[in-house]
Amino acid sequence: MDKFDLIVVGAGPGGYIAAERAGAAGKKVLLIEKEALGGICTNHGCIPTKSLLNAAKHFVHGIESAKYGVHFDNPVFKLSEAMAWKRETITGLQKGIAFLMKQHKVEVVFGQAEFPSGRPGAEGFPVIVDGVEYRGDDIILATGSKPFVPPIPGHDLPHVLTSRQILGLEELPKKLVVIGGGVIGVEFASFFSNVGVEVHVVEMMDEICPMMDRGLAGVLRKEMKAVKFHLGARVESIDDSSVTFDKNGEKTSLEADVVLMSVGRRPNIEGLEGLGLDMDGRGIKVDEKMRTNIPGIWAVGDVTGESLLAHSASRMGEVAVANMTGGNQIMRYNAVPWAVYTIPEVAGCGLTEAEAKEKGFNVKSAAMPMKANGRFLAEYGKKAGGQCKVVVDADTDLILGIHMAGGLCSEMIGAAATFIEAELRVQEIKEIIFPHPSVSEIIKDTIWNL
Amino acid sequence: MDKFDLIVVGAGPGGYIAAERAGAAGKKVLLIEKEALGGICTNHGCIPTKSLLNAAKHFVHGIESAKYGVHFDNPVFKLSEAMAWKRETITGLQKGIAFLMKQHKVEVVFGQAEFPSGRPGAEGFPVIVDGVEYRGDDIILATGSKPFVPPIPGHDLPHVLTSRQILGLEELPKKLVVIGGGVIGVEFASFFSNVGVEVHVVEMMDEICPMMDRGLAGVLRKEMKAVKFHLGARVESIDDSSVTFDKNGEKTSLEADVVLMSVGRRPNIEGLEGLGLDMDGRGIKVDEKMRTNIPGIWAVGDVTGESLLAHSASRMGEVAVANMTGGNQIMRYNAVPWAVYTIPEVAGCGLTEAEAKEKGFNVKSAAMPMKANGRFLAEYGKKAGGQCKVVVDADTDLILGIHMAGGLCSEMIGAAATFIEAELRVQEIKEIIFPHPSVSEIIKDTIWNL
Repeated sequence: MDKFDLIVVGAGPGGYIAAERAGAAGKKVLLIEKEALGGICTNHGCIPTKSLLNAAKHFVHGIESAKYGVHFDNPVFKLSEAMAWKRETITGLQKGIAFLMKQHKVEVVFGQAEFPSGRPGAEGFPVIVDGVEYRGDDIILATGSKPFVPPIPGHDLPHVLTSRQILGLEELPKKLVVIGGGVIGVEFASFFSNVGVEVHVVEMMDEICPMMDRGLAGVLRKEMKAVKFHLGARVESIDDSSVTFDKNGEKTSLEADVVLMSVGRRPNIEGLEGLGLDMDGRGIKVDEKMRTNIPGIWAVGDVTGESLLAHSASRMGEVAVANMTGGNQIMRYNAVPWAVYTIPEVAGCGLTEAEAKEKGFNVKSAAMPMKANGRFLAEYGKKAGGQCKVVVDADTDLILGIHMAGGLCSEMIGAAATFIEAELRVQEIKEIIFPHPSVSEIIKDTIWNL
Repeated sequence: MDKFDLIVVGAGPGGYIAAERAGAAGKKVLLIEKEALGGICTNHGCIPTKSLLNAAKHFVHGIESAKYGVHFDNPVFKLSEAMAWKRETITGLQKGIAFLMKQHKVEVVFGQAEFPSGRPGAEGFPVIVDGVEYRGDDIILATGSKPFVPPIPGHDLPHVLTSRQILGLEELPKKLVVIGGGVIGVEFASFFSNVGVEVHVVEMMDEICPMMDRGLAGVLRKEMKAVKFHLGARVESIDDSSVTFDKNGEKTSLEADVVLMSVGRRPNIEGLEGLGLDMDGRGIKVDEKMRTNIPGIWAVGDVTGESLLAHSASRMGEVAVANMTGGNQIMRYNAVPWAVYTIPEVAGCGLTEAEAKEKGFNVKSAAMPMKANGRFLAEYGKKAGGQCKVVVDADTDLILGIHMAGGLCSEMIGAAATFIEAELRVQEIKEIIFPHPSVSEIIKDTIWNL
């Protein structure tokens, strides 16, 4: 029986980073993964979608670049080739993770982890994979999440796909209906609409992407010109060739040869029942140090139901490992950035203005259109939408949130996360120099406008 | 005779930002500009080159994107259309600056400023434009710089152009020789080579771009595959159709129908002689508060010969205005980012490893290839070069410098400037969350590798 300091279950961005950090700290670590290194993020989520969206971006650019003198004929998008590139990317990243595990002496076992008991024996917690028993002094559960498929009539038809299944297509659909206008739904809508597919998004709420500033969600929706959005619309049924929804009592049927079901994700807690873990409404209940109710068992990432983002999972993994190796860290959610990789991108960090007001802050805010920025204007032109918005606590001059739509804001939002995490005040940020011309200057310029 | 609190001479990024900040602070401000709002940066520098490089990037992308399923035929680049787009961008930005001046009640006068005397009368310093006299309690000189043309035989032939003149071309040259492999030279080399021009760069030093980490300069040079670099080569003469250089005693002639002379820039100090300003070897001598030797006269931007970058000029303008309006700020150069907008981009902030060692720091450093990053791999593939390098003071764990090549690093370097300016330590940066997948994560990952 192999004995480890730490057994990590799940090799997604929560699990493999935790294993890496613990290995780097000198711990003897076992990483158990039932499918593939990198988890959903690398294999069926963040990475494949970004790979496809990059291809779509170049396809659109090639079509729209005549305005600055760049001309091409006969645009053709071949999904099967984009998918091949995507697979090559995934393989490269899996190899990278395998290398990191080796570098930090993390043992990797593939298979389904079973937990015969939550009680540690003298040799630690038992975990069984394919009949082989391992023991760990500490356990990190990083089992992730899976798509939630609501029991709408027709949900089990073969052309109704989850976000994972749709990544297996080799040919473009003709008409795609996306059920659910959250991040996953709008990213796929952006991809397919930009490569020529007719796309409808049906969303039950009155606006897409609930975590976004409502104004920026509207900007995104308007900029996604090729997509038809149906808001405040409840899907009632799906059949072989159509999706029927109800909006204010009126029924509409949309033709669809593929339907994407993207209404949310649920934590993977099957098989953990025997551990006696406390759950809350969303997943495994953890404290701010990532401890579950059972001493020695930690949970990180989507399975906790908190902040379902790859980088949140990674940070949770780091916090858990820090706390089990003599450190004392807490998981802070106030400076978690997020990005939506639509065309155009949207990104944010911290509170929206509405959230800040709801929490009782004395809010000061400023917003600027992206096209006030030199580089943005040079690259996207005066007709392009987009905005930067900064939300500040007027009592302390601390940044509460920064929200952007337009350009490559996913690459700029790291600066915003730094402002919030480092608790910089407005005057301090005014003195930071951003390079000119860069779209990132819009953050500083908006702060000067407060 | 109009009397102002502040007269700003030069409406580039040093001058117009100074005028804006002073106007916002309630000062009565006159801005004098001899040509066009925005100065060289907006009209003949940063903005037009970025506009052209963006077009070139899309041209290359359209040609190279077949690898992920995006196909086009018949690529054609029309320089005249790219130049028209560039002009539209410039016009838009000029209007933006004019709006800002109006918003902050800054009066704008076009014409050449003359200085009859450096001595303030009871009514302040006299400045004359087109025979009209204005007076200012304070003067900010922000007169910028111009290209330096060395007296190489043939330098005055009509096809030998400065960076400003080459932006007036309406047709692509067939063979371009760039004299000088600094930032301006390599950006133009990148642009023209990517749209199909045969380009040679002749550089006297042993490597291009002296401010770059030597390793990253080499990465950039290798990634600019279509350009032929001649290093350690001294141009001896230019004639109607060729450029002749000497390398280790051996002469080579390169055919050229256009020659770009980009060996450096010199401060614009003509007409300032009467003021009695102290100069140093580079330009107007200023202290860290941007004061010249004459109380009430300040100088900012390229004319000081310090940090010839648009954003440095803007920050100098802010510092000068803060100090003349009751504040107490100093100009810090340790956290000035820079970016080279070649394909691929290079960006940096702070000291290179070699500079840090030379200054006597106890240096710790780490570097990672860009392709270790998920998004970079998804978008650029495993053959793409690029690197992130972090330089730390091992005694304090403060960041001394961050240097990157590859991807859109110009948009990420703002985070590095923030780390340095806010004096964050390694452990603090490890706890900052960057969005996944973003290329900006490479900064954090490299810091974890220290």
